[in-house]
Amino acid sequence: MNMAHNDKVNLNTEKIILGIDPGTNVMGYGVIMVKGQKINLVQYGVIKLDKLEDHFLRLKKIFERVSQLIEEFMPEEMAVEAPFFGQNVQAMLKLGRAQGVAIAAAMAKQIPVVEYAPKKIKQSVTGNGNASKEQVAAMLKNLLKFQETPEFLDATDALGVAVCHHYQNGVLTSGKSKSWGAFLKDNPDRLK
Amino acid sequence: MNMAHNDKVNLNTEKIILGIDPGTNVMGYGVIMVKGQKINLVQYGVIKLDKLEDHFLRLKKIFERVSQLIEEFMPEEMAVEAPFFGQNVQAMLKLGRAQGVAIAAAMAKQIPVVEYAPKKIKQSVTGNGNASKEQVAAMLKNLLKFQETPEFLDATDALGVAVCHHYQNGVLTSGKSKSWGAFLKDNPDRLK
Repeated sequence: MNMAHNDKVNLNTEKIILGIDPGTNVMGYGVIMVKGQKINLVQYGVIKLDKLEDHFLRLKKIFERVSQLIEEFMPEEMAVEAPFFGQNVQAMLKLGRAQGVAIAAAMAKQIPVVEYAPKKIKQSVTGNGNASKEQVAAMLKNLLKFQETPEFLDATDALGVAVCHHYQNGVLTSGKSKSWGAFLKDNPDRLK
Repeated sequence: MNMAHNDKVNLNTEKIILGIDPGTNVMGYGVIMVKGQKINLVQYGVIKLDKLEDHFLRLKKIFERVSQLIEEFMPEEMAVEAPFFGQNVQAMLKLGRAQGVAIAAAMAKQIPVVEYAPKKIKQSVTGNGNASKEQVAAMLKNLLKFQETPEFLDATDALGVAVCHHYQNGVLTSGKSKSWGAFLKDNPDRLK
């Protein structure tokens, strides 16, 4: 009886979050599994785009790889790092498109998407909104217990946004069944 | 024998093109069918987004409606109007995302996407790269034989990009079977 009860609790509190750090040259991704108070690393890596000269081929690769990640890990939610606005309009349009196809890959599978500003992610992971990428990576290595620093910090940035989403949305840890509307209602502070 | 031959020719030269004029408030669409030398209007309209306050809900609506249009009309190719670069970086990011999800809806169904600059579309449809939206609409009404001017010229703009794509890509009128790679190879002048 007790065991059955525990099983049920575990099932209810287990959640997989896919974090994405979008870029037009390298796109980072990180997958974590949250179970009760524990956060486990599932996978992280990058999608390299710089060898594809054509902008549409890059978009296609992003869409296909993000779709594959969703099919493989079946995350309940996807968290995306929002960009700085320091770039020129042409670069922003390209970045927007890259983000758009990644977001569409989640929407195609009915997965809610939330975005967080870089400062919010750093604050959430390290306690310091001005932390460096290396500091974020070091904190995540400790938290998620992995040894090597990845070649591209886009991968740890993506893990960072997934961890940030978990910390920010305790209310959401209980289920797979949130509708898009309910999700929005529960997250009025979401970046628009 | 002769009839069979004619049937085959007609099948080979029939093509449906979906034109999209992306925007974050109103997104126009236009569907044309090209058969030999004839261009027929299939449908045009707009997807209104201005009543949705949340940016993610707008993206979701764009993705769903463009997916529906593709399922309903089964176009061989999608043509998108490229934006001006006059806006600020924040507006460009949002527009890029809107375009990104529309493009992803096509990619999800293996439909090649091509984009054309506004000037190129005006030039192609009216013979004048500086034509007004009204002049483009008037030319399209004559060419595609429809009477009423739509409430939103985004719809005729979308028809314009579809017609422009047809005029620019005579080589492509023969088939459904173009691979993405072959398509790119045949269209080196595509906007990057």
